[in-house]
Amino acid sequence: MLDKERFAMRAVKWMRWVLLPAVVVIVLAQAAPALASDGGPDPLIRGLNTVWVLITAFLVFWMQAGFAFVEAGLTRAKNTTNILFKNLIDFVFATLAFWVIGYAFMFGSTAGGWIGTTGFFVSPAGAQDVAGLPLMAFWLFQLVFAGTAATIVSGAMAERTKFSAYLLYSFFISAFIYPISGHWIWGGGWLATLPIGAGFKDFAGSTVVHSVGGWLALIGAILLGPRLGRFGSDGKPKAIPGHSISMAVLGVFILWLGWFGFNPGSQLAADGLNADIISLVAVNTNIAAAAGAISAMVVVWLFISKKPDLPAALNGTLAGLVAITAPCAFVTPAASVVIGLVAGVIGAYGALLLEKLKVDDPVGAVPVHLMNGVWGTLALGIFATENGVSGLIAGSAEQLLAQTIGILAVSAWCLLCGMVLFATIKAFHGLRVSREEETQGLDILEHGAQAYPGDVLV
Amino acid sequence: MLDKERFAMRAVKWMRWVLLPAVVVIVLAQAAPALASDGGPDPLIRGLNTVWVLITAFLVFWMQAGFAFVEAGLTRAKNTTNILFKNLIDFVFATLAFWVIGYAFMFGSTAGGWIGTTGFFVSPAGAQDVAGLPLMAFWLFQLVFAGTAATIVSGAMAERTKFSAYLLYSFFISAFIYPISGHWIWGGGWLATLPIGAGFKDFAGSTVVHSVGGWLALIGAILLGPRLGRFGSDGKPKAIPGHSISMAVLGVFILWLGWFGFNPGSQLAADGLNADIISLVAVNTNIAAAAGAISAMVVVWLFISKKPDLPAALNGTLAGLVAITAPCAFVTPAASVVIGLVAGVIGAYGALLLEKLKVDDPVGAVPVHLMNGVWGTLALGIFATENGVSGLIAGSAEQLLAQTIGILAVSAWCLLCGMVLFATIKAFHGLRVSREEETQGLDILEHGAQAYPGDVLV
Amino acid sequence: MLDKERFAMRAVKWMRWVLLPAVVVIVLAQAAPALASDGGPDPLIRGLNTVWVLITAFLVFWMQAGFAFVEAGLTRAKNTTNILFKNLIDFVFATLAFWVIGYAFMFGSTAGGWIGTTGFFVSPAGAQDVAGLPLMAFWLFQLVFAGTAATIVSGAMAERTKFSAYLLYSFFISAFIYPISGHWIWGGGWLATLPIGAGFKDFAGSTVVHSVGGWLALIGAILLGPRLGRFGSDGKPKAIPGHSISMAVLGVFILWLGWFGFNPGSQLAADGLNADIISLVAVNTNIAAAAGAISAMVVVWLFISKKPDLPAALNGTLAGLVAITAPCAFVTPAASVVIGLVAGVIGAYGALLLEKLKVDDPVGAVPVHLMNGVWGTLALGIFATENGVSGLIAGSAEQLLAQTIGILAVSAWCLLCGMVLFATIKAFHGLRVSREEETQGLDILEHGAQAYPGDVLV
Repeated sequence: MLDKERFAMRAVKWMRWVLLPAVVVIVLAQAAPALASDGGPDPLIRGLNTVWVLITAFLVFWMQAGFAFVEAGLTRAKNTTNILFKNLIDFVFATLAFWVIGYAFMFGSTAGGWIGTTGFFVSPAGAQDVAGLPLMAFWLFQLVFAGTAATIVSGAMAERTKFSAYLLYSFFISAFIYPISGHWIWGGGWLATLPIGAGFKDFAGSTVVHSVGGWLALIGAILLGPRLGRFGSDGKPKAIPGHSISMAVLGVFILWLGWFGFNPGSQLAADGLNADIISLVAVNTNIAAAAGAISAMVVVWLFISKKPDLPAALNGTLAGLVAITAPCAFVTPAASVVIGLVAGVIGAYGALLLEKLKVDDPVGAVPVHLMNGVWGTLALGIFATENGVSGLIAGSAEQLLAQTIGILAVSAWCLLCGMVLFATIKAFHGLRVSREEETQGLDILEHGAQAYPGDVLV
Repeated sequence: MLDKERFAMRAVKWMRWVLLPAVVVIVLAQAAPALASDGGPDPLIRGLNTVWVLITAFLVFWMQAGFAFVEAGLTRAKNTTNILFKNLIDFVFATLAFWVIGYAFMFGSTAGGWIGTTGFFVSPAGAQDVAGLPLMAFWLFQLVFAGTAATIVSGAMAERTKFSAYLLYSFFISAFIYPISGHWIWGGGWLATLPIGAGFKDFAGSTVVHSVGGWLALIGAILLGPRLGRFGSDGKPKAIPGHSISMAVLGVFILWLGWFGFNPGSQLAADGLNADIISLVAVNTNIAAAAGAISAMVVVWLFISKKPDLPAALNGTLAGLVAITAPCAFVTPAASVVIGLVAGVIGAYGALLLEKLKVDDPVGAVPVHLMNGVWGTLALGIFATENGVSGLIAGSAEQLLAQTIGILAVSAWCLLCGMVLFATIKAFHGLRVSREEETQGLDILEHGAQAYPGDVLV
Repeated sequence: MLDKERFAMRAVKWMRWVLLPAVVVIVLAQAAPALASDGGPDPLIRGLNTVWVLITAFLVFWMQAGFAFVEAGLTRAKNTTNILFKNLIDFVFATLAFWVIGYAFMFGSTAGGWIGTTGFFVSPAGAQDVAGLPLMAFWLFQLVFAGTAATIVSGAMAERTKFSAYLLYSFFISAFIYPISGHWIWGGGWLATLPIGAGFKDFAGSTVVHSVGGWLALIGAILLGPRLGRFGSDGKPKAIPGHSISMAVLGVFILWLGWFGFNPGSQLAADGLNADIISLVAVNTNIAAAAGAISAMVVVWLFISKKPDLPAALNGTLAGLVAITAPCAFVTPAASVVIGLVAGVIGAYGALLLEKLKVDDPVGAVPVHLMNGVWGTLALGIFATENGVSGLIAGSAEQLLAQTIGILAVSAWCLLCGMVLFATIKAFHGLRVSREEETQGLDILEHGAQAYPGDVLV
């Protein structure tokens, strides 16, 4: 209790750090109006592309609800308030962190290819277009991606993490970890300019977003340890079923819909040849999702639980979506079928592997986001034939090499940061709730409220 | 159990049929790149129209979640996993079936107006525009419609159909039945070119999508027989209330939103006069939905249950939406009010009629999709005044004749196919689960999982 | 019972009033086709802007589901059917009321700046563009705003209002109250042309939509009195927890998404400089929502309940969204942080204040929509620096004066109308259900159905 008050006092101090600069920027804003536009060659093309980028950004924002519902549905009712709260607040923190510093680290002028150094508070650059778009449209699109990376971690650490610890690491992910490795790839950094193949390629973020979230999820889950009762005293795993498959299914449908923003929106334009690319990307995204669902369903049905298992098919869908995220603009629909089929299998067996390693990942965030983030990034190096990138089947091994280097670099970065971040929180603040709290559920002791009070169905 | 394993083995064989051609197409893809664009007169118009078609396609995809939630909400909790699973997998199957053959049958070069014969795997035609759009955008839009037709059937057959049987018929609907009658109307087939009135007209699919789904739903429901306990030993109907009106309401809101993609998107363009048409279509869609809700509510309140009944109002909303789907581009908002009011009444009394005939349709799929699919298609022949089509009130009876011919032709096709399909499955595989399974709920025996495990609300 | 039948008979009479004019308008429609377009200078710009306005209108429509779920989630399961039903039907009524007369009162040719007088049934004007858009697109966008105003009231009056009384006042709000004050501000009326500052400004409706709904909600809640058990015999407030925080969270995510239509869509255009404005508006909207969530969470955590409270954070999010609605096009992102932070605090303490005044507002509609509607409208007068409007921090006090006049005028109008409307309904029809009905829940006695029948989780 006292501990929490101390944390809250710290939060207030933190708010001062937002409020003060805010006032400063308001004053600055009068000198550098946010609306002065440099026009660009065709205001109509710019308008069309802005509409496309804004609407796809809205769809990606909507994925926050999807992640929240997948995670809450696949866990127990006694932790639902806590889980939904985290999924709301991580996006809230991402918004402020990415505004204050995250965007600058990711997309500011590069310092040697390692980190961006301009554009804090998304101001003075306020008057300039980025990628042919109003800066504000570009910023919003990038923000919703940052929010996604942060929220992935939540699922693997569900049902046993302190709320205040979650706030801390969620802020650091959006403010530092994600933007810096993101700078290497999307901010014009060293991986983007790698002189191998077409340079490291990740169209919409299998690595930039999903693997980063997935690595941090894995480290967090390991450092936390499994939930009470997840492994018996004999070491045997015991399934802990989620409280509402309806919520999980809704979440997956929301995510699938949101991915139509995530991937096709990443082209950042819709005119001319861009119309062809976004259409191809949308089709590939949909096909890989379907293929992932079907292969996960069949593999589990035949070889694992011997039944058509809905949570497995749901994670197969997400696996296919994560895997196609990197290569979606560079491959054919036929290749997307193969990428999705493999993704579903990886998702299903990946979950088994984690269980064998006694890592407790309540929602399958690691097989979905990490393993398939890696698979999708490699798949680009194998199947790329479109849009100026050539993979193995087009006869070039270079791209696969570039992809491997990127995967290794980002892994190292995430392992380093994740270890430091979670170990620091664990040492100085505590990462895990008490046994009593975990047994009773986090909702009552952390938040003083149940998600579904007892008299609900009376 | 053994039966299921046999089915699963068959599923694996089936997957080979996807995998093999996939590899072939990847090889082909290098010769016929998916991104070569033939430009068209104005790349900006093409970009705008692509954005419009993609976003409306996303909205129609979202309807899958709506159908899933309406169906699951209006049925019992013990079958929820099964129902949600079916509503996920039917779209998954539709994606693959429509990619491999469905699209070719529907939109390939016509063989005498009866069936399309080119465009399998949506390739070699990959390089050409369709309707002024990138092929991939056009394909995605058509796919989500195919998915809708398949998913309608699920509701009428809920709570008693074998999961494996569902997979089989769901595949055949998306691969054969829907595309072939669709070819007659939207693929340039014999109904489209009927030399009566403006030819058979169905703007967004009251017949092409909804009646087709509705006829198959009716045949399926009849061949399955009613759920245990739906009719007493005295033959009197007993209502089986659904487990969550909240889910059903969410589903209807999702469908209403999705219909703003379904109908306005069907214009496939947004420039010039198209901007007026899509605006009119959106308004008509909304007005008919509202009118359907109100007339269903009032009719049930006054004459049937004597209370304002929410499920009735929900089905009235959907009834209005289905009915306006065919005529939405050809009528005024005032006519849409009338079409919607009538639709709501048809929906309410249609459900009573089915009950009298002892057909058990748990979610009202037949009154909503079949009866109002027919009504909407006729209504076009009555109220059309806009956009080059003239109905009865504009003084021409020809259009109504054309509409009637189309309705009869599609009915005959669906009755034939439905009877053969369901009777074959019934004879060789079995259509209905065992008494025991139905009583216990399909979730446990088919899927080994409950939607809401017992300790949920503790 | 008898009472309800009488009401239903009245409803039938009312339907005649819709049907008859409908038939008349159909006849008229042939003379005045809805599709004749006057073109405008650039059909491509018009197409782009139509796409933007339609899609954002769809997003605003989607907010109906959000309001429904926030309200139902924060109240008890025994009233869920009733609450969801109201949230469906108020939009249905808004559709018809705004079509028949509401639009004409709001956007018709002005009579002295007080009320519009042309455009009933959205016809004869059917052939003319409004704001460079097809009339139908403009109408749909305005309709979904009218629907929002009506639905706000529902939350404050939840769990004790007669369904038939709700239908009555819901119709009057959409048909008269909202359109008339709306005319003063958005229809070119006297507040829009106020010769102080830039005239009264309300970009997307902090006052036009949210304060209007909020005032009516306040009056309704006062006239109804609190729910049974909300205040003990000693006058002490007792919290009545809602039945599903999951539904409430989903509702807030839906509303946040919908607000990306509400605010950015209100620019009604996306070409040229409009692309910059809609991007800024989207960013400001998102930032204020995040700031509102965080300040509400922190304030409640530190000073009120001493825990991170999810419903408080949810209402803080909505508070930020309501507050930024008026100024979103006129302020910088930094100002939006401040506006949102203050909004969250107002929301949290506003709820306490209401409780102290013994006003029972089950979902917090008054602190969110009324208090923050007022705050946002004032904030415009303080922080405006962009897009041609100058507030206090830009050195001009005039705008703040104009804002204050507008707030007072709209308050007076709403107080007058609300008092007359609710007092009349109370006197002649009754506003509140019986004690017995309230205790048992409105679902069974009003609608003869439970939202979650007893055997749900068996």
